[in-house]
Amino acid sequence: MSAHTVKFDTLSQAVQVPTGTLLSEAAMQAGVEITQPCGGQGRCGRCALQVVEGTVRRRSTLRLSQEDIDKGFALACQSVVEGDISVVVPPQEKIERLLTSDRTVAEVSVPAGYNFRLDQPIQRVRVSMTPPDMSDQTDDLSRFKTALRQQAGIEDIRVSLVQLQKIAEIFRQEDWRVTAILDAYTWDQPDAPPRLIAVRPGHEFNDEPIWGAAIDIGTTTVTVWLVDLVSGQVRAQVAEYNQQISRGEDVVSRIIFANKNGGSEHMRNLVLDTINQLLDQACKRIKADRPVTPRDIVKASVVGNSTMIHLLLGIPAENIRLMPFVTTVNQTPTLLAEKVGLEINPDGTVDCLPGVASYVGADITAGVLSSGMDDSDVVNLFMDVGTNGEIALGSNEWLATCACSAGPAFEGAGVQFGMRATKGAIEEVWINSETLEPTYRVIGGVKPRGLCGSSLISLLAEMFLTGIIDKGGNFDTNLGTARIRQGAHGGEYVIAWGEETADGRDITITHVDVDNLLRAKAAIYAGFTVLADSVGISLDLVEQVLIGGSFGKYINVEKAIEIGLLPDLPWERFQFLGNTAVKGAYRALLSRSARQRVRDIAARMTYIELSADNTFYEAFMSALFLPHTDLSRFPSVEAAILKQGSSQ
Amino acid sequence: MSAHTVKFDTLSQAVQVPTGTLLSEAAMQAGVEITQPCGGQGRCGRCALQVVEGTVRRRSTLRLSQEDIDKGFALACQSVVEGDISVVVPPQEKIERLLTSDRTVAEVSVPAGYNFRLDQPIQRVRVSMTPPDMSDQTDDLSRFKTALRQQAGIEDIRVSLVQLQKIAEIFRQEDWRVTAILDAYTWDQPDAPPRLIAVRPGHEFNDEPIWGAAIDIGTTTVTVWLVDLVSGQVRAQVAEYNQQISRGEDVVSRIIFANKNGGSEHMRNLVLDTINQLLDQACKRIKADRPVTPRDIVKASVVGNSTMIHLLLGIPAENIRLMPFVTTVNQTPTLLAEKVGLEINPDGTVDCLPGVASYVGADITAGVLSSGMDDSDVVNLFMDVGTNGEIALGSNEWLATCACSAGPAFEGAGVQFGMRATKGAIEEVWINSETLEPTYRVIGGVKPRGLCGSSLISLLAEMFLTGIIDKGGNFDTNLGTARIRQGAHGGEYVIAWGEETADGRDITITHVDVDNLLRAKAAIYAGFTVLADSVGISLDLVEQVLIGGSFGKYINVEKAIEIGLLPDLPWERFQFLGNTAVKGAYRALLSRSARQRVRDIAARMTYIELSADNTFYEAFMSALFLPHTDLSRFPSVEAAILKQGSSQ
Repeated sequence: MSAHTVKFDTLSQAVQVPTGTLLSEAAMQAGVEITQPCGGQGRCGRCALQVVEGTVRRRSTLRLSQEDIDKGFALACQSVVEGDISVVVPPQEKIERLLTSDRTVAEVSVPAGYNFRLDQPIQRVRVSMTPPDMSDQTDDLSRFKTALRQQAGIEDIRVSLVQLQKIAEIFRQEDWRVTAILDAYTWDQPDAPPRLIAVRPGHEFNDEPIWGAAIDIGTTTVTVWLVDLVSGQVRAQVAEYNQQISRGEDVVSRIIFANKNGGSEHMRNLVLDTINQLLDQACKRIKADRPVTPRDIVKASVVGNSTMIHLLLGIPAENIRLMPFVTTVNQTPTLLAEKVGLEINPDGTVDCLPGVASYVGADITAGVLSSGMDDSDVVNLFMDVGTNGEIALGSNEWLATCACSAGPAFEGAGVQFGMRATKGAIEEVWINSETLEPTYRVIGGVKPRGLCGSSLISLLAEMFLTGIIDKGGNFDTNLGTARIRQGAHGGEYVIAWGEETADGRDITITHVDVDNLLRAKAAIYAGFTVLADSVGISLDLVEQVLIGGSFGKYINVEKAIEIGLLPDLPWERFQFLGNTAVKGAYRALLSRSARQRVRDIAARMTYIELSADNTFYEAFMSALFLPHTDLSRFPSVEAAILKQGSSQ
Repeated sequence: MSAHTVKFDTLSQAVQVPTGTLLSEAAMQAGVEITQPCGGQGRCGRCALQVVEGTVRRRSTLRLSQEDIDKGFALACQSVVEGDISVVVPPQEKIERLLTSDRTVAEVSVPAGYNFRLDQPIQRVRVSMTPPDMSDQTDDLSRFKTALRQQAGIEDIRVSLVQLQKIAEIFRQEDWRVTAILDAYTWDQPDAPPRLIAVRPGHEFNDEPIWGAAIDIGTTTVTVWLVDLVSGQVRAQVAEYNQQISRGEDVVSRIIFANKNGGSEHMRNLVLDTINQLLDQACKRIKADRPVTPRDIVKASVVGNSTMIHLLLGIPAENIRLMPFVTTVNQTPTLLAEKVGLEINPDGTVDCLPGVASYVGADITAGVLSSGMDDSDVVNLFMDVGTNGEIALGSNEWLATCACSAGPAFEGAGVQFGMRATKGAIEEVWINSETLEPTYRVIGGVKPRGLCGSSLISLLAEMFLTGIIDKGGNFDTNLGTARIRQGAHGGEYVIAWGEETADGRDITITHVDVDNLLRAKAAIYAGFTVLADSVGISLDLVEQVLIGGSFGKYINVEKAIEIGLLPDLPWERFQFLGNTAVKGAYRALLSRSARQRVRDIAARMTYIELSADNTFYEAFMSALFLPHTDLSRFPSVEAAILKQGSSQ
């Protein structure tokens, strides 16, 4: 097999690759960052590069115009190197730094009655040993164990090689007075002796912090909370985009990418980088005499959907994507931080909270834990509407769950001007029912760049109630406003004219966008109706609707009901819980009983597979309208339509 | 700090080192192998290099003549680089390949009644799982655990991340029919669920081997036995010099070397290299359809003295050398092979057998195990005379042990023509009492190069009984033979004239050599007499003298008694057991009960510290004569002296 030279304009050195190498692989080998939101499936067109010398074989040119192709543009993930080439790398989409502003920092209070000594499996033990002499040549470890037994009543401990390598020096440096940090609970071996995690100099004070981390690996955003396990307080909150985004925006794209040669290791490193940088960032926020570093963290509690957990652990995720959609593991054992790759204390451990199924992961069990619905006397509906839509229904007596592949439309994907809820996103829209002119609010108060989830819901509702679109989502272009027009993708509505926007382009919502949003909302609505039906509960009986996920936090319940995304229940039954996933991880980090409880939740939850028969599909088809085929399910919306109609 | 160039004649590239770097460090950095038998203490003079351009600062010139110094010779471990230099590396002493001939291959029989299923903690379990479908989306791990429970009655298992990363693929490739290899015993957690070590394709046959390794890390020689755990048979035996020899011949030199910057890691790598190469070599000896590789080994049982175990595990050994001579750990937990650095199955485990004290290590407890003395009705004396002399005394009712720093004289160190028992070593010497002419036998039947332990004992005895030396070890130069002469080191006896020898030099034994040998034998004899005294036993009550160690295997009991190395007991009470250390490791590898038994041995052994008072010193001084100050302790020798005297 012959080798070819690939020269990227952004690098001084060319790379050598064998015939048949994908251009994206050559780029990765050269260290050139190429955005691949669809995971290298050739679907999104965002990895296009310009081949200016030589040619490549294009397996697919989807999303490239003939003009693009004539200029040499080729999809990096779909083009094969078969000769020497020179490549120009267009500016890549930059992933903006997350604003850890009020939009991501949560108010958290320490659970009532939290008691470090009683609840926390991590223990701090001070011991003083008698130094050895010629009449007592007991080995260091036995001496230490004897002191633990006599001075703290600890019968035995487990010790790693790393600790054995360190104790001789610290015992002698500290005149045989040390503080031991022990971990008394691993859930695969709850009754095993405590593990020694660290030996620290001298006798520590009671209030000296012992650090733990609660980590939520979202498909889009990774959140880390740094927790003082002694007081139970969250001392720093940080969040950042999951670096895996550049290799796929949704879980399926990521699984596809990970399944390619070397992809799994690459994906793993991307998320580990994200987490480790966040841990570092969180530690730097702590003001203390001695700087806190990630190595001081002795315990991590991790949540995420099943794909995120598999990718984090380097476990093949392919079977999550393929029928019959099976994970390799829902409940991982307690793992050593070093094995996972978290750069905390290498003897610290990582508990990945348990998931239930391929598409109901630890983020949901953690959400249920933090919502408290598993302990509630009444029927609760819990929803986490992120990139996927996961739903749980139940009470302290029973729990059922399902996942509906809503797709990431409400996160801005599949919507032409869709974007995440960051600076420049229009977050709320109102449409005047007479003039059909919109009013909007932009995050950060700058010129708008696009539309985030909350404004998409508002838009759908407003357009529907003002008659811009009908219940099938079709635009009425005969309303006498320039804002409704025929675009490249059919009918569209202009929210902001070019002169108002950041890049001078009109911001619109198109017929295709509306279709995607309808499908997403229909999937979610169908999800919880089928779930309720399958357990024989009427939705009216739901006393509380608990909405988790950062998306949920900013939606307008009224509008969401108007489009048929949420059930038509009194508004006071809705509660927005914010990032319930990280809150659940935090609860589990604090106590043995919470960790046991989340396992019980995972074990108790009956998983309903929506794709097992036609029930879901039928419910989905019925929900593809605004608000629903069966308007009687939405009496409040029916009333609003009537009112709107009579006022016109 | 300025940098200097150091150019070694054996390398094309020079290295840069900062001012103050030791020449030996520069050599190591450059990758030049320098022999350092004394561990870099400047005592042995074997690391001398010739500085031919530039100069070095010599901190010590011990063992260098003025002529050497004038020629530029400098001790690498004692010379400091302070400018650019060019260095000539003299040919370094080569460590010869061990002959794994009849001298090292032991006859081993599988312990009577060994039963894989009952005795061996490693288990082989075949399971067939029902494949998942849309009506059963159980995760792979739970499916596997269910099959283990239903088909093999195994309630739970512990699973590592490495295994979790592998199971999805192998389950599907093998149509859900696999063989699991489990380890049901770790001695720090004897009641924990079995650990999954490997998942193998399909259903293995009952007689398919499962590989384990018994490893003895001697200060001089590392021995590896490859064992089929199913049949219990030792299928390959290999041995090689411990590569650490180049950094110190005795444990103290090695500890000193390891305590230097980077020395510990270096020492660890040297012994790991030795072991890993041996494992590879052992595997290659197995003839099978599918080649056996070290990765197929699922369990290793390791013995060695406490220093060797500390160095293997990267645990600082410095406190073994310093008063009050304390190890960091005598009983290590069961360790993951990957953590130890053994290149076997990374989920395989390593049990380092327990030691008792700094100078009574796992080699002795293993020796006691394999000798069976802990289960004997009569009083046994067990000796392992290697580089150190370790002694155990006792029966099934009590056990006592001590260590006497005999020094490595009987291994050839500290003796001018001393060498190890390899090709070219004189292994036996007889001296004609009338002519005082010697007869000798050489290993390998070649021209002699030196004297190994067994011939040194013979020589001492023969020289003493023929009057060449008196009971104080002084040469009688008035016996009218050219073989007894005055040499550079006082009186000496010529065993082989230059024309008979490999390098043309006379092979002699000198007064200094005799002194060193006397001290070594006195230490050993004093050791077991003090040990017997301390437990209130007369040596006459010893029914069996069990001699372990490769040294012991070839000594002549009669001669050893004649010089007062062994107690004067009837010859039939002596048994030579060969390498009892590796035999003990092998026993422990085979069964849970043997592993428990060696722990009991370590716990039961009363350690007597000989340097705690003057008793040992006085006994040592009395034993510095041939055979002893108190001749009545050696009636058979007294008789021989009388007979010899009357025949002259």
